[in-house]
Amino acid sequence: MFDSLDPFALMNVVGLLAFAVAGSLKAADAGLDAFGVAVLGVVTALGGGTTRDVLVNRLPASLATTWDASAALLGVGLAIVLVRRTPEHVRIRDTPAFLASDAVGLAAFAATGALVATETGLTPYGVVVLATVTAVGGGSLADLLIGRVPVVLREDFYATPAVLGGAAFWVVAALGAPSGVPSAVCAVLVFSTRLLALRYDWHLPRIRIDGRASE
Amino acid sequence: MFDSLDPFALMNVVGLLAFAVAGSLKAADAGLDAFGVAVLGVVTALGGGTTRDVLVNRLPASLATTWDASAALLGVGLAIVLVRRTPEHVRIRDTPAFLASDAVGLAAFAATGALVATETGLTPYGVVVLATVTAVGGGSLADLLIGRVPVVLREDFYATPAVLGGAAFWVVAALGAPSGVPSAVCAVLVFSTRLLALRYDWHLPRIRIDGRASE
Amino acid sequence: MFDSLDPFALMNVVGLLAFAVAGSLKAADAGLDAFGVAVLGVVTALGGGTTRDVLVNRLPASLATTWDASAALLGVGLAIVLVRRTPEHVRIRDTPAFLASDAVGLAAFAATGALVATETGLTPYGVVVLATVTAVGGGSLADLLIGRVPVVLREDFYATPAVLGGAAFWVVAALGAPSGVPSAVCAVLVFSTRLLALRYDWHLPRIRIDGRASE
Repeated sequence: MFDSLDPFALMNVVGLLAFAVAGSLKAADAGLDAFGVAVLGVVTALGGGTTRDVLVNRLPASLATTWDASAALLGVGLAIVLVRRTPEHVRIRDTPAFLASDAVGLAAFAATGALVATETGLTPYGVVVLATVTAVGGGSLADLLIGRVPVVLREDFYATPAVLGGAAFWVVAALGAPSGVPSAVCAVLVFSTRLLALRYDWHLPRIRIDGRASE
Repeated sequence: MFDSLDPFALMNVVGLLAFAVAGSLKAADAGLDAFGVAVLGVVTALGGGTTRDVLVNRLPASLATTWDASAALLGVGLAIVLVRRTPEHVRIRDTPAFLASDAVGLAAFAATGALVATETGLTPYGVVVLATVTAVGGGSLADLLIGRVPVVLREDFYATPAVLGGAAFWVVAALGAPSGVPSAVCAVLVFSTRLLALRYDWHLPRIRIDGRASE
Repeated sequence: MFDSLDPFALMNVVGLLAFAVAGSLKAADAGLDAFGVAVLGVVTALGGGTTRDVLVNRLPASLATTWDASAALLGVGLAIVLVRRTPEHVRIRDTPAFLASDAVGLAAFAATGALVATETGLTPYGVVVLATVTAVGGGSLADLLIGRVPVVLREDFYATPAVLGGAAFWVVAALGAPSGVPSAVCAVLVFSTRLLALRYDWHLPRIRIDGRASE
């Protein structure tokens, strides 16, 4: 993964750490034991990329390289240290440092997803889907494992930046931009729209069905 | 997908639309936002075929062709129009038009699953499993995403037609029927048993374990 | 699968039967119908191996051979017979015979997972992950299908033996042990730590986050 994505290596590591921290904290909050905390941290960090690779029939980078898995495990350890060192009234996942790191990860993962999709020759739809799945798949898998509806389906303006980033990657690549440019445009767009959404509390509209309950 | 399944192209489109409508309505009922409604519609329509392709190491048709994804997105749009245009007291998913379209999709998807399994050289078990997963996998994934036990596991005589159709496909193919015949037999059997199950309220027996609660 | 794992064939069959019985009983307890009981039995028995094969881009043994699927279906039938023949006050899944069979399956599946990972050239992380996923993936999928947080994430010292076994497999193989030895060491370690954990009620520590509720 890393050889072909050199400029993104740092962003990718930041993202793996942030996602692993997020998953571990989520697991600890849900009362899981040490094994569950490690699993949720690792799944949150590596689940999106693994799903991406499975969908396009690649050997998952998470299993075939030591780099990504090491970063994920480091993130689990970091989460435990953070919990011990942070004052009780601070909610780690609401701190600017965490939210910015998480946005970096979202941007890096969306860009790698779009890049792999393009290399595989997928359709525009495929590029958008793979960017989005890579970016939000890990967190969604972790949510499912602890019995929650994935956050991205419920409220946040969290997946939308990845969708926009995937679409932008495809457009820029289709316009014939040189290698590296589509990834950069995608990452900048994801990162900035995510931060703007947090800053201005953006939300997608809810589809109303009024009195129509079902099932 | 479509070139090798020409006689099924129309059925497949009807099924994609019906499944996408079903998924979108389910999401709206569950209170998801616009992104969630689109995701659940697309997952319901494309999830079964994507799972099928992943299981047999094919590049998913949903990501590698524009046709299926376009039909799924069209179905999401159709769901929104239907909700706006249908009187409040009508439950769309109980209308004969919806149920018939859904049964067409079940039939088309079971047939494509069985066909892919046969082309891949799977065992009879594999043919039945792939027919069933293709037919009911999308709806089950959508159920899991919103935190529900998949309907097919709980009550409906919904997966059973796909199981019977997959078995019939294998038998007819093993008897040496010419190309196209196994798919046709499978689709007709799935469609008719599904409609009969709805008409006569068929149910599978429940296995009783009496007082043995667990976990 | 079986040709390359001959010494494990018996353990594997015992495991498939025990896992299918466990899944079927779980489904019956949860009030599913006959189709759901069969699905949960089959998913519990075959889900781990299928996930393993999908992750490394192999055609799943569960779909490409008749042996595994036959054993799983036999296990479903066995569960129904057991329920009918066991006195009401006996909880089948707490009997020593069931627990020992289940531990045999855990050991056999962890060894096959580690073996496939090694054959695929995965990293040490990959060997541990694939051993664990193969051993506990089927039960976890079944838990998710009925809306439960997988048992392995909540409390049991159940996945940990598989993690230890995968690590032991890798170490023994890296030390240059002849073919067959890593699998044997892995299986013996998994089986014995699982039984010791049951006997002495071992648990992993819980990570405490005190007053920090979230989401």
